[in-house]
Amino acid sequence: MSTFLAEFLGTMILILLGDGVVAGVALNKAKAKDGGWIVVTSAWACAVAIPAFIFGGVSAHFNPALTIALAAIGNFSWDLVPGYIAAQFLGAIAGATLVWLAYLPHWAQTEDKAAKLGVFCTAPGIRHTVGNLITEIIGTFILVFGILGLGQVTMADGVGTLATGLLILAIGLSLGSPTGYAINPARDLGPRIAHAILPIAGKGGNDWGYSWIPVLGPIIGALIGAGVFKLVF
Amino acid sequence: MSTFLAEFLGTMILILLGDGVVAGVALNKAKAKDGGWIVVTSAWACAVAIPAFIFGGVSAHFNPALTIALAAIGNFSWDLVPGYIAAQFLGAIAGATLVWLAYLPHWAQTEDKAAKLGVFCTAPGIRHTVGNLITEIIGTFILVFGILGLGQVTMADGVGTLATGLLILAIGLSLGSPTGYAINPARDLGPRIAHAILPIAGKGGNDWGYSWIPVLGPIIGALIGAGVFKLVF
Amino acid sequence: MSTFLAEFLGTMILILLGDGVVAGVALNKAKAKDGGWIVVTSAWACAVAIPAFIFGGVSAHFNPALTIALAAIGNFSWDLVPGYIAAQFLGAIAGATLVWLAYLPHWAQTEDKAAKLGVFCTAPGIRHTVGNLITEIIGTFILVFGILGLGQVTMADGVGTLATGLLILAIGLSLGSPTGYAINPARDLGPRIAHAILPIAGKGGNDWGYSWIPVLGPIIGALIGAGVFKLVF
Amino acid sequence: MSTFLAEFLGTMILILLGDGVVAGVALNKAKAKDGGWIVVTSAWACAVAIPAFIFGGVSAHFNPALTIALAAIGNFSWDLVPGYIAAQFLGAIAGATLVWLAYLPHWAQTEDKAAKLGVFCTAPGIRHTVGNLITEIIGTFILVFGILGLGQVTMADGVGTLATGLLILAIGLSLGSPTGYAINPARDLGPRIAHAILPIAGKGGNDWGYSWIPVLGPIIGALIGAGVFKLVF
Repeated sequence: MSTFLAEFLGTMILILLGDGVVAGVALNKAKAKDGGWIVVTSAWACAVAIPAFIFGGVSAHFNPALTIALAAIGNFSWDLVPGYIAAQFLGAIAGATLVWLAYLPHWAQTEDKAAKLGVFCTAPGIRHTVGNLITEIIGTFILVFGILGLGQVTMADGVGTLATGLLILAIGLSLGSPTGYAINPARDLGPRIAHAILPIAGKGGNDWGYSWIPVLGPIIGALIGAGVFKLVF
Repeated sequence: MSTFLAEFLGTMILILLGDGVVAGVALNKAKAKDGGWIVVTSAWACAVAIPAFIFGGVSAHFNPALTIALAAIGNFSWDLVPGYIAAQFLGAIAGATLVWLAYLPHWAQTEDKAAKLGVFCTAPGIRHTVGNLITEIIGTFILVFGILGLGQVTMADGVGTLATGLLILAIGLSLGSPTGYAINPARDLGPRIAHAILPIAGKGGNDWGYSWIPVLGPIIGALIGAGVFKLVF
Repeated sequence: MSTFLAEFLGTMILILLGDGVVAGVALNKAKAKDGGWIVVTSAWACAVAIPAFIFGGVSAHFNPALTIALAAIGNFSWDLVPGYIAAQFLGAIAGATLVWLAYLPHWAQTEDKAAKLGVFCTAPGIRHTVGNLITEIIGTFILVFGILGLGQVTMADGVGTLATGLLILAIGLSLGSPTGYAINPARDLGPRIAHAILPIAGKGGNDWGYSWIPVLGPIIGALIGAGVFKLVF
Repeated sequence: MSTFLAEFLGTMILILLGDGVVAGVALNKAKAKDGGWIVVTSAWACAVAIPAFIFGGVSAHFNPALTIALAAIGNFSWDLVPGYIAAQFLGAIAGATLVWLAYLPHWAQTEDKAAKLGVFCTAPGIRHTVGNLITEIIGTFILVFGILGLGQVTMADGVGTLATGLLILAIGLSLGSPTGYAINPARDLGPRIAHAILPIAGKGGNDWGYSWIPVLGPIIGALIGAGVFKLVF
């Protein structure tokens, strides 16, 4: 398998499992309705860990901010960056499309347009440009510092990926509350594009005005995380 | 131990622990009553992982859709398929019978006939033949693609089974909401037959009209999952 | 360390962590109040796994039913059984005493006498002698069959104990609802004795009438579990 | 990396992830609002495990009570104790500052001053000096006995840190209810100092009257835990 295919499929599974849980807690007549924050954050942790297990032997970024940060510190070739980002976005759009299909009859039965958009992409609890950016920067700083930090530890085969899952769980539980933790431009903008394109029953706007924050914030945070890692390790 | 016995006992434990949790959240005066989606999905993840640990050295399909898909891609002998499926169905019926016994005084104290049937087999949040089929297809696609994908990864002994448990958890959390995630014909039809046979206090109908969806959907999804795996790996 | 000391300390920690969580969800002004079934069952899983890790190199039964069943199938010397059971009961009483101390100001602020007894020992959701016995038998059958079943699997060091924790989690989630899953005579009768002895503020009766069920049921279940294991493996 | 830097960074991440989850469940318009005890305790478990993974090869105390107890039993040099404690407190203050930033717009929208203080440091459910001290002593006894106990077990690389995470989870679930489980002087006093210093919108007092209990209790408990460990192992 090519690394591009791994990035495409891995990001598709990430978004299928990640956006899927938000559909489950947000859409009417879904069995996870109002399942709570532990449901959302546990699922996102698995949504990262499972493709990381499956595709880890080939390529497992699934996140343009991580790809860019790795290139910036010389751990990844800049030449591959455009192809990786394209694969990640296409995978995210494919995953979001599968979520739309998996919950097909539920869209028409859910009135709340913001809830439907919220299945696909993030929205902050309080709109505050500086605050929202800071939250995404801090969350992605810990994500990238943590991934690199876990990467330099000797662990039995597979245990490192479990630890990565716990890292995602922790970021969600502890830092996901203000903005819904995009911490990944493809995770947010990809499904937002899918929301714009797909014929979702009774959908509303795409909130483009917010859409740059979960792109820029994660890139800044990832660069800081990778930089601090290089500095201290 | 023969592989058939492993399939029988493993599927029995799968259904005992899986249907058991639904009894706990659904039946009156049970301590898990209204325990939420995290309770249901965590238990089903363990319900798969525990027999997978115990019987993994012998045989650990516990799912006719997986058995058929493995045969279809040449990883399992078609000659063994009928025996496997029989063992899986008998195990599922035995497990459902143990659930009925474990919750013996609770059936009479629960009025809701649909809740009692729901302990044994799945029912969708919204009845929609095409939508329900698609959900089961996508869920089982990820199940089988994930099992095969995890199977080609080098992991320390036992860690792969933990990862499989996380896969089941993720499918439940993220894709289980529309239909209750049968993703396994024996898991649904076996206990449905048990519900029809057992003298459950105040039971209602068996919803046979829906029963073919959690059989056909998982088989289609498993075939797609195994096929895509063969294609990309 | 002697095996008796390991059994004493391990059972003490089991009950400190296990009964502790019930105090947290049941007593007034405790922060886990009404935390739900996932809180209770996760804590009991850890309550078994942690002393199993720490004392596993010496001795880690912590359960007279398991000790008796292992002796019955010839995996443990009958000569040591009385000492083991004594150590387990003393450990359970010590652990329950620590729970009483850890929640010292909360007893007087909780009116519900049944809730206070429920911190120490189990009570069924529905009183039904045959049904309650069957539940404890099935739960302990799976416990002992599972422990022995996991014990014959090759796993990386420590992973088997994680799997045992998942087994306890699953039993709690799926089979704990009808009776509160004693599945261990020392876990139930030990703290019940502590409840009778300790000067707990505003305590009620000890429900001795029920106390034989979580002793007899687990012993029967453990014997069946060990017997079936010997038969099939 | 120096051990002091590891202690600083590790404690910073511990508090960022630990206090972060309390902000998420306590502050208005945060998505984890009222997420429950499982959210809080799972996050604190990860908050310890993740820096323990990352910095475990260098130094991973992150807790003055543990540092002192290890020195007291001769497992750590007294000469390093002041530097370690300074690094831990500075890390805790840095972590608390990041939490303030990550939730920047939420402070002004939350009226409850006690809830805002509670993001940073602990407060008991019932104020009772002896009882609160006992709770912190018992909790830290199990923490330090458990860390040392797990440390003498042979486990595959990384599994021991997962087990440590489960230990933290168990202490939180089972013994965290009465006082909010400081079990670490730096975890409580460090962020309390941060609360006093930072320009948090609409903040109240710092509850200095309680602040000595989560310092003294953990130190006593850690000494007992380390002493009992030396005695029995």
